[in-house]
Amino acid sequence: MREGQQALRLGDIVERFGGQLLGDPELLITQVATLESAGSGHISFFANPRYRRQLEQTRADAVIVSPEVADATQRARIVCKDPYAYFAQLSSLLNPMPAVAAGIHPSAAVDPSARVDHSAAIGAFVSIGARAEIGPATSIEAGCVLGEGVRVGRNCRLHANVVVYHDCSIGDRVILHSGAVIGADGFGLAWEGTRWNKIPQIGRVVIENDVEVGANTTIDRGALDDTVIEEGVKLDNQIQIGHNCRIGAHTAIAGCVGIAGSTHIGRYCRIGGSAMIGGHLHIADKVEISGATAVPKSILKPGTYTSLFPISQHQDWLRNASYIRHLDALAGRLRELEARLAALQGTSNE
Amino acid sequence: MREGQQALRLGDIVERFGGQLLGDPELLITQVATLESAGSGHISFFANPRYRRQLEQTRADAVIVSPEVADATQRARIVCKDPYAYFAQLSSLLNPMPAVAAGIHPSAAVDPSARVDHSAAIGAFVSIGARAEIGPATSIEAGCVLGEGVRVGRNCRLHANVVVYHDCSIGDRVILHSGAVIGADGFGLAWEGTRWNKIPQIGRVVIENDVEVGANTTIDRGALDDTVIEEGVKLDNQIQIGHNCRIGAHTAIAGCVGIAGSTHIGRYCRIGGSAMIGGHLHIADKVEISGATAVPKSILKPGTYTSLFPISQHQDWLRNASYIRHLDALAGRLRELEARLAALQGTSNE
Amino acid sequence: MREGQQALRLGDIVERFGGQLLGDPELLITQVATLESAGSGHISFFANPRYRRQLEQTRADAVIVSPEVADATQRARIVCKDPYAYFAQLSSLLNPMPAVAAGIHPSAAVDPSARVDHSAAIGAFVSIGARAEIGPATSIEAGCVLGEGVRVGRNCRLHANVVVYHDCSIGDRVILHSGAVIGADGFGLAWEGTRWNKIPQIGRVVIENDVEVGANTTIDRGALDDTVIEEGVKLDNQIQIGHNCRIGAHTAIAGCVGIAGSTHIGRYCRIGGSAMIGGHLHIADKVEISGATAVPKSILKPGTYTSLFPISQHQDWLRNASYIRHLDALAGRLRELEARLAALQGTSNE
Repeated sequence: MREGQQALRLGDIVERFGGQLLGDPELLITQVATLESAGSGHISFFANPRYRRQLEQTRADAVIVSPEVADATQRARIVCKDPYAYFAQLSSLLNPMPAVAAGIHPSAAVDPSARVDHSAAIGAFVSIGARAEIGPATSIEAGCVLGEGVRVGRNCRLHANVVVYHDCSIGDRVILHSGAVIGADGFGLAWEGTRWNKIPQIGRVVIENDVEVGANTTIDRGALDDTVIEEGVKLDNQIQIGHNCRIGAHTAIAGCVGIAGSTHIGRYCRIGGSAMIGGHLHIADKVEISGATAVPKSILKPGTYTSLFPISQHQDWLRNASYIRHLDALAGRLRELEARLAALQGTSNE
Repeated sequence: MREGQQALRLGDIVERFGGQLLGDPELLITQVATLESAGSGHISFFANPRYRRQLEQTRADAVIVSPEVADATQRARIVCKDPYAYFAQLSSLLNPMPAVAAGIHPSAAVDPSARVDHSAAIGAFVSIGARAEIGPATSIEAGCVLGEGVRVGRNCRLHANVVVYHDCSIGDRVILHSGAVIGADGFGLAWEGTRWNKIPQIGRVVIENDVEVGANTTIDRGALDDTVIEEGVKLDNQIQIGHNCRIGAHTAIAGCVGIAGSTHIGRYCRIGGSAMIGGHLHIADKVEISGATAVPKSILKPGTYTSLFPISQHQDWLRNASYIRHLDALAGRLRELEARLAALQGTSNE
Repeated sequence: MREGQQALRLGDIVERFGGQLLGDPELLITQVATLESAGSGHISFFANPRYRRQLEQTRADAVIVSPEVADATQRARIVCKDPYAYFAQLSSLLNPMPAVAAGIHPSAAVDPSARVDHSAAIGAFVSIGARAEIGPATSIEAGCVLGEGVRVGRNCRLHANVVVYHDCSIGDRVILHSGAVIGADGFGLAWEGTRWNKIPQIGRVVIENDVEVGANTTIDRGALDDTVIEEGVKLDNQIQIGHNCRIGAHTAIAGCVGIAGSTHIGRYCRIGGSAMIGGHLHIADKVEISGATAVPKSILKPGTYTSLFPISQHQDWLRNASYIRHLDALAGRLRELEARLAALQGTSNE
């Protein structure tokens, strides 16, 4: 763990972010930490009751807690409604994004027609194509490749070895993690009797402001129109987004999710890891999809949706799974029993 | 969307690709577009009846339609059997692959013993190992790394940051998208009582002609013999193909599919996104596998195969899923009921 | 297939690795091969009875076999308890890792404050950040990017285009395959009413000795504490490991597995391809998880666990799957039948 660059008085923290301070306002805080690993100068938070033992044993100098558990420790503490959100804000203050060292590394290959803002940082072995535009205070790390006509806004950070294909557009304050590929061709094929014919993918990818894209995530360019990632969307690692998808603002998608082409996902959705969403679907706003859930059809109203086969010991699974293939037969036998029993009861009631 | 490089007369299009023209043959077409976003100079296509409203409202100058719906619009139109395939061919003509600017970028690191055809294009920061061979009109974009002894045929396109490990062989007209890794070691391990022993992977990857490989897709080299991707295979993004697999000609595989080692997939198969295929299996020709389907055993005859747990609201899922683990008990109770009822009917028939 | 660099006498092999030799000890072996493709100078192994026909037809000069099938061929053979492990050791001897050509490629961008051992090999276009340390005989191939403060031990091999974010630590004899991303930010977000707030990820990734990481696999840095991959762990391609996970020593994980944040996996586990493991879970030592299995809760005792929906032809699936959503109704009808039958039997027994 790295130490933060500065020390903050507990009193200053409360002045800035609110909450009620129980303890010495002069205490200096240098970093956030878990209850378990915190030490001198560290502040932690307590949100999950099952970590109560860690709270008792913590060596943190201070703890952020909710009103219900304000008495669970005698250490210096900040009492607030949402300790996790409070902690997130404080951590952002203590661990700011590193400053961008403006300038173009001498090894970078920047096309003469590209426009790179003088406050942007271009790393070693970066390749920037013709007519590309890089905005102020944006950092493009080593090994990134930006095609012709790519536009990147201000205050973005492209980590090492990101690829953005030609003509794609990236907003402000966007973070792209290493290995992300933005704008590769969508999977557009027409069957021609004996072979596939590749359909040119002439749309773009448009990524709006405040989006974060995880490592090795891929977002395909549109076939004709654009693929669009709306503002504030957060994508984890190894997500695949097919051509002409639209991901609604502030939706968060966990790792390894695949979304097939032309599907529109609403705003404020939360999609669990390894979920799979079919093509040409419409998912409403505020839908939650459980991890490992397959979505083969549109979901038109908010709620949580799941399609998980329950896990069990392999022997139990073997015993039960065989019946899955014969549920219709089982249901048929049930119907027959009901009919026979009804007939019998008719008889015996006579 | 980019505008095509040329304008074609409608009359010339029909002369070249066939179909019946209803409308002015002098009309100039510069680009393909969706019904919704088309404007002046654009041609669209109408294949899916549920887009009829878009057809009515389109501002496309011309539309490609099937005979059954030839009267659904009064705009200039080309009537043909398969509007989507027709559209694909026309789009390929209007949007040709960009010409390759022959030459080796001064920053590239090409081993002196490698042979690069004078018509090939080698981008910035490309690394090409000893004895590698690059064919005519092939483009290797920025940041690609080709190991020793790699062979790439003619008219290929390796997008930025592709890696091909030593000795792998790539045919003609092959497209590899960014982040694809060809020829990494297969997952070959022998357990030695207290630890794993790595088994050298001495096979290669052989990719035949006209294959396309999506972004961040990985194809492992063979353990002893080669991993083979036959001609015309189309692989989407983030697919994993294990060592010693063979993928039959003209098979298309959607994103996020995993295929474990030594599995042979037939020709003309279609595999849906996020499917998972176990190791050492044999999949026949012309098999279709639904998205998110797990294939734990061989499939020996053509057809469509599925293993999806139906999605439902989480509360409904909770209520139903618990029974999955007790299907054998349910079936047992059903059998007992049948026996009791049979006994009872025997009794009451007396 | 490449030929090994040396020839070994069969007698020398047995002297080195044990086993009983039936055949000419002077026979020279140059390479390992499958029964099917072996030729002159090759040794193969026979472990799976269903390859008996290949054994009969092989042209291998020698075969490694178990005592039970020692008579199944008359070719020269080595009889031993575990032919596969024997073969693995022999293959490692015949196919050693290529020697590292010490030195820093003139194109590499190595920060002056980084310490690179004189016996390490740094490839073309490699970028190494401030204060990084690279140990003896370690090879960093073309296009790799190592952030500030990264530590890599001795005898490691980082294949082309690997990225290691700042401050991560990698042990000795570690292999990272191309496209692997070590130490990207974990997916840490706090909801702030109208938008997500990114939580700084200030932990590291620590990879211990003898770990292998597959192509395009991603391992996220910890939010506060570290993400840890213990010694001898083997990870296949396209695996995603979330922040603050701990993977126990000698666990092997097949391709496309996703493990959500803060989950601890035990030692000696084996996890099948495309499995998905939820966050904040605890998986005991020696647990096996079947391929494509979703694990939504902790597993506290060893054993094999499965959650696969059985595959079937699509029509059969359609017929059966509809009942899944109504299992509780089915069970309710069964209970009612049981009650009615009990009542009836009570009646008819009167």
